[in-house]
Amino acid sequence: MNYLLVGLVTLVVLVGLIVGSIKLMSSLPNSLKNISLFLERLPGIGEKTANRLAFFLLNLPDEDLKEFAENVATLKLKTKLCKKCFNFTEDETCEICNDQKRDQSVTCVVETVLDLLSFEQGRIYNGVYHVLHGKIDPLNRMGPEDIKIRELISKIKDQKSKIKEIILATNPDMEGEATAMYIKSKLTGLRVNELKITRLAYGLPMGANLEYADYMTLKKAIEGRNKF
Amino acid sequence: MNYLLVGLVTLVVLVGLIVGSIKLMSSLPNSLKNISLFLERLPGIGEKTANRLAFFLLNLPDEDLKEFAENVATLKLKTKLCKKCFNFTEDETCEICNDQKRDQSVTCVVETVLDLLSFEQGRIYNGVYHVLHGKIDPLNRMGPEDIKIRELISKIKDQKSKIKEIILATNPDMEGEATAMYIKSKLTGLRVNELKITRLAYGLPMGANLEYADYMTLKKAIEGRNKF
Repeated sequence: MNYLLVGLVTLVVLVGLIVGSIKLMSSLPNSLKNISLFLERLPGIGEKTANRLAFFLLNLPDEDLKEFAENVATLKLKTKLCKKCFNFTEDETCEICNDQKRDQSVTCVVETVLDLLSFEQGRIYNGVYHVLHGKIDPLNRMGPEDIKIRELISKIKDQKSKIKEIILATNPDMEGEATAMYIKSKLTGLRVNELKITRLAYGLPMGANLEYADYMTLKKAIEGRNKF
Repeated sequence: MNYLLVGLVTLVVLVGLIVGSIKLMSSLPNSLKNISLFLERLPGIGEKTANRLAFFLLNLPDEDLKEFAENVATLKLKTKLCKKCFNFTEDETCEICNDQKRDQSVTCVVETVLDLLSFEQGRIYNGVYHVLHGKIDPLNRMGPEDIKIRELISKIKDQKSKIKEIILATNPDMEGEATAMYIKSKLTGLRVNELKITRLAYGLPMGANLEYADYMTLKKAIEGRNKF
């Protein structure tokens, strides 16, 4: 009897919430509603934030909105992947690959363009990149053939003389590790002479607090300790 | 000497950060950079989030992007303020004001359309609204004449027979309170017969924990206690 009551109450609350959210949307005019619904599809943006952003757009100058609209409409037409490293570009190859000052013999393999941007932000790396556009992730049905591993291998085969080092800079999580392991096994299988394969160092992040560090990080930090 | 050193280091770090962020942007093609820079202007969206959103747009279907661009370009043209309550609308008056089932004798005064949507979400209110589009906030140079107070007063003067109750639903913060006080003094100055002016109840929010409640809320909850 009690279960039935709890079930009924839950049902009523759920129906209320659904009806409520339909009602919420219906109070907005279509011009705002459509924009809000689109923004809600973006990652990390919920219904309230989408509404707030749509209202904010209303306060911007008309020419700015028109320019933004133009940019959005032509985005997919203009943006291509660099033929060499698969970074985003408007030309055939990206600015980084075109830069003659960069060391073309070192290639840093990253999962996404956002990772590439993190390296670029610090000006800490002067080689070139290879963007995988994903990681091996069986749970989400991403296999080795779904990301740009084949292209990396054929690049190394083709330009045997140029690439001397591959830095595997996939994320230090389960899928990133698996991706790095897979690429390493493929590359060693090629038996290319003098190809160095490296991985980013593990350890404590700068400014970290030992008290709050997880034990896996501490383990890696001890294992990888250096002469001081 | 030490101060000079600290100053120098700070300068170097600052220059590094500025150069770094210029560098970060320059690694992106213009098509993405422009969209990212626009999104950065929206509230609560920083540089990294803007990049992530711009990259996400790249993965959406072309027709969806075109439709969104069209909506953004025509947003300001299509969206107007309701002549009665200043809610957003595409027509002369909004859906809420047009709804004959709503009680036109009760008007709820809110600061923003987002506040109006919060009431609508719960279907807890069946009257109409008056959106002020702001609050009295001298620090940000917003006076009584910058928000829709004059319009509220002339509405009450005009339709003396219709409006019987004004619910002041401005936020329970300093500026919201000041706005409510100001409107109350203006309305009582009108000496309209039988006009009830009310304010939202203060107290503990539902699901709150007494342990974490601030003392002002507790004070209001005790002052406003009801027979149980």
